Amino acid sequence: MEDPIAESLAESQKEISVAEFFERNRQMLGFDSSARSLITCVKEGVDNSLDACEEAGYLPDLYIEITEKNDEYKVVIEDNGPGVIKKQIPKIFGKLLYGSRFHKFVQSRGQQGIGISAAVLYGQLTTGKSARIISKISPDDPAHLYEININTDTNEPEITRDEVVDWTRPHGTRIEIHLTGMYVKGRRQSIYNYLKTTGIANPHARITFVEPGEKRTVFERAVNELPPKPKEIKPHPAGIELGTLLKMMRKTESRQLNAFLKNEFTRVGKTTAQEICETANLKPQAEIKKMGRKEAKKLINAFKQVNLISPPTDCLSPMGRDRIEKGLSKEYPEAEYITATTRSASVYSGNPFIVETGIAYGIQKPEEEKIDLLRLANRVPLLYQRGGCVTTKAIKDIDWRRYELNQSGGTGIPKGPAVIMIHVASTNVPFTSESKDAIANVEQIRNEVERAVRETARNLKKYLKRQKRISQRKSKRNVIQKIIPDMAQKLQKITGKQTKNTEQVIAKINNNFLVTTNITKNQNHHTATINLENHDRTKKEIQINLPLTDQLIEAKPKPKKQISEDHITLQWNRQLSSGEKDKLKLKIKTPKNQKPNIKPQITGIPKEILTITQTGENQNDQ
Amino acid sequence: MEDPIAESLAESQKEISVAEFFERNRQMLGFDSSARSLITCVKEGVDNSLDACEEAGYLPDLYIEITEKNDEYKVVIEDNGPGVIKKQIPKIFGKLLYGSRFHKFVQSRGQQGIGISAAVLYGQLTTGKSARIISKISPDDPAHLYEININTDTNEPEITRDEVVDWTRPHGTRIEIHLTGMYVKGRRQSIYNYLKTTGIANPHARITFVEPGEKRTVFERAVNELPPKPKEIKPHPAGIELGTLLKMMRKTESRQLNAFLKNEFTRVGKTTAQEICETANLKPQAEIKKMGRKEAKKLINAFKQVNLISPPTDCLSPMGRDRIEKGLSKEYPEAEYITATTRSASVYSGNPFIVETGIAYGIQKPEEEKIDLLRLANRVPLLYQRGGCVTTKAIKDIDWRRYELNQSGGTGIPKGPAVIMIHVASTNVPFTSESKDAIANVEQIRNEVERAVRETARNLKKYLKRQKRISQRKSKRNVIQKIIPDMAQKLQKITGKQTKNTEQVIAKINNNFLVTTNITKNQNHHTATINLENHDRTKKEIQINLPLTDQLIEAKPKPKKQISEDHITLQWNRQLSSGEKDKLKLKIKTPKNQKPNIKPQITGIPKEILTITQTGENQNDQ
Repeated sequence: MEDPIAESLAESQKEISVAEFFERNRQMLGFDSSARSLITCVKEGVDNSLDACEEAGYLPDLYIEITEKNDEYKVVIEDNGPGVIKKQIPKIFGKLLYGSRFHKFVQSRGQQGIGISAAVLYGQLTTGKSARIISKISPDDPAHLYEININTDTNEPEITRDEVVDWTRPHGTRIEIHLTGMYVKGRRQSIYNYLKTTGIANPHARITFVEPGEKRTVFERAVNELPPKPKEIKPHPAGIELGTLLKMMRKTESRQLNAFLKNEFTRVGKTTAQEICETANLKPQAEIKKMGRKEAKKLINAFKQVNLISPPTDCLSPMGRDRIEKGLSKEYPEAEYITATTRSASVYSGNPFIVETGIAYGIQKPEEEKIDLLRLANRVPLLYQRGGCVTTKAIKDIDWRRYELNQSGGTGIPKGPAVIMIHVASTNVPFTSESKDAIANVEQIRNEVERAVRETARNLKKYLKRQKRISQRKSKRNVIQKIIPDMAQKLQKITGKQTKNTEQVIAKINNNFLVTTNITKNQNHHTATINLENHDRTKKEIQINLPLTDQLIEAKPKPKKQISEDHITLQWNRQLSSGEKDKLKLKIKTPKNQKPNIKPQITGIPKEILTITQTGENQNDQ
Repeated sequence: MEDPIAESLAESQKEISVAEFFERNRQMLGFDSSARSLITCVKEGVDNSLDACEEAGYLPDLYIEITEKNDEYKVVIEDNGPGVIKKQIPKIFGKLLYGSRFHKFVQSRGQQGIGISAAVLYGQLTTGKSARIISKISPDDPAHLYEININTDTNEPEITRDEVVDWTRPHGTRIEIHLTGMYVKGRRQSIYNYLKTTGIANPHARITFVEPGEKRTVFERAVNELPPKPKEIKPHPAGIELGTLLKMMRKTESRQLNAFLKNEFTRVGKTTAQEICETANLKPQAEIKKMGRKEAKKLINAFKQVNLISPPTDCLSPMGRDRIEKGLSKEYPEAEYITATTRSASVYSGNPFIVETGIAYGIQKPEEEKIDLLRLANRVPLLYQRGGCVTTKAIKDIDWRRYELNQSGGTGIPKGPAVIMIHVASTNVPFTSESKDAIANVEQIRNEVERAVRETARNLKKYLKRQKRISQRKSKRNVIQKIIPDMAQKLQKITGKQTKNTEQVIAKINNNFLVTTNITKNQNHHTATINLENHDRTKKEIQINLPLTDQLIEAKPKPKKQISEDHITLQWNRQLSSGEKDKLKLKIKTPKNQKPNIKPQITGIPKEILTITQTGENQNDQ
């Protein structure tokens, strides 16, 4: 009898090391095209450095240098972070799936323990050269230099050099990687642009960048304070997975159910724990180690029914509305309108997250082109896989025509001179791949992105509608202001009668607010009448300020007075409904009964609908 | 002195198990939304089963069943493959990065050793239930049943049940996974559609599918033969990475350079090895273990300079032009035009690959909608991440207006009632993530996809241009055929003169080919003249067939004769340049000198430009 085929097949069934897996599938780590590989290498190093500095409480001061020699690039990334202790250096940089942030519930750029060792792996794969790491943990400790390779068969570091060296920094880490790649400039997907955007999202960081050819750029700090350090939390019960819960139940040191709930979850206190137990129909004192799948399922259902407080946001480090607006206006100084919003925290699968958005409108960009999209996750700009990102999907699904932007067919990326920024901050951003380019289509995140974008879009809509009204009004006004006086003149010629002031007519047609000052001379004083006429469609609340250097005899209605050194300012607050008229009357005495200077200043009304004029009678006076 | 921060940070630096990594990042494996998770689970099982059957040489006969109970789905996938030996079952299904195909240079669906254990992991995570596997390796062996979990801390299987059971299949594997998800129908992204497309790409497979609600569909085999089994090969020198080469040099059992080159690479024989050594300026007898980075770099450069034969294609299993066309016409029976192409093999980073494309035009789809895109990798339909796929990028970059399809702005997915199918077959498809949804933007692949698509697009263009010409000609002809006779009649009325036959005029205007038969009666015979006039712009080669039941006295020029029982057929082959005329003359004797029946049949000219008529004189005869 022949051996079953399965026997011979079994011979080749074996374990695959994670390092050889990614050596073969380096595109999953962001190392596909040569241009992108160089960007990814820098990105992984910078992410690492920023995380390290912030974790230790140092204002990041990064140095990035790229040099080219014989088709090979050398990338240097240096930081003033806390450094890595000698023993850990080889594993941190020479082993995939090794790190400190994976098991923590706190926002950080790196979470996977893959990034920087992936860059080392790629360098080794393309140039055969070891990565060089120098790290120093305090001014009193020596700096250690390591050269390491990754043994891809075992996913373990191989040390090829190990010495103590002199290094100028008091503490920090420097990594040098040789790799093949392509240095590109002037594109959205470039190292320069990545660092620039990183600077905007991290205004507390100074980044010095030396390009091939030694051109040096310093992206300076905009603020001298670190953002509040995010605090580690426990998972939130909302949306936690059954398997995860079972694992937590197995691993907990708590003995009883209520203690387990209180100790292992955020936002679960004594009362909530009690409530969960009741809803799940489980005894609070039930022994956790005796519970299984059935009980876990009851708990999961209870989590959904009990009213839980949103997760704390101090595990997250959002940029905040203010910084987004500042960041956008720094990058797009030409923008005519900027708005931003930060949503409150939400949860998916037990992970808290916050979505923030900003829109800058009126940037240098042709009207008919699609808007720009600036995607960020945990303050890291995302450059690739735009189409596969949940943020893009959310944007495409909005009918932007409702928000005054062009969009063919009411779906897809809208058109216009605008940029939309979206920042997703989370203790665990669900990326679609290890290269961390796109956020997966997680329903809760998609919904929050949509809400956040709609919030800013509503502001934009208001602005654009107003701009539209103003521009319509302006063109109407321009036409009318040309026609009416012409007509008046012609009428005058035909009838021989002098026409009245045309301003009032124009204001009426234009729905304007008309302020007319009329001054008449009396025996030993002047009378000034300020006529207010609201021809607009809505009620107006205005303040009239009238600086006066002459002597006031009387004013009706009675104004407030602000007295300065050489003049007083009269102040009135008036409300006028649509169509209403009002009148302010003053008696003024001037030296030698000269004509007084009456120039009322009006606030509370947009300039474009305000007409201030003096009547003909007054003009005749001159 | 305080301890450096690095010391305390080091405490949390530790290894991350690949299972817990993917437990946290299950979206990378294709388990993000609930609808997609169910599809991914089926997909991984089906891929596995098809690979197993084909590897063992069995015609696949798959059974997929999905049932729902209390918000949970049970997915069953059963095959008639070779089965898995008892010892290997737990690892194959309960350990990530474990399998038989990763280290082989041969086309297969699964390559990663992740897919099916990822489905097990997801089931366990969402329902807490173990996966159940039954496998039998031959009719003489017992069937083994295992229930397993994955310990995510260690990435090792945990066996919860292990017994021998009765099973009807002579050999094969059955897996049952419980998971939460959502069953969707009638969408492109659905299990039904995935299985249907799988059937098209794998016409040798029978797939039985039982949906929730017990609706049963059988996707029957279209062919009863397995595709040729792809053969394992060695890597091809083209584009091999320095690091990979160094690793091969370390691992080889060959002692000398020339032996190493010959033994470890495909397409390197004695002569080529010699040539490579010469080009690299290295001695063929050089000891491989003494060589390092510098020598490897020289070899890499030599690989680029030496003329290497393309990799063998027998490691690949493309569908072939014929099967693509058949597959498309099966799925789109309404299509009016189908074309396909299979490129020859190419290489990226040492991996051979082949790109195939097909286009079906005239499918049921609104003109103004974007065309459909059917993406396949190693015969597996790709359903998600379309935007991130190199195939989509290649399609978008083509100016489709040059190929007679609409495309706004000359970029992006074109519009029209068409579907474009793209199949990339490779020993290692570079997917952007473990979920295998999108092929990474690898330059060599993008170029080949573009070339393949352009090839089929050129065929489509020819077809569409012809269709356009025909429809233009038709409408012109319709107009002219209405106008000319009307005009002729009016002229006749005015002038009183009888107008000549208008057909010739119409043919001339329409650039038609005109065939006019004129029959005159003589004393005891008839003379028939067949006039040929080529008014078309190009030369025409035609064949005239004339069936004749009467007696032929004479024919000029001399025709070929085909004699049947009751008639003869006269045959002439004539060539007429544009504008040329020709004449065929016959003398025919009929009983009682009745008028003969002369009906020439013309081939070699599109029907729409052919006008066959009889002259007025003949008409007068009647």
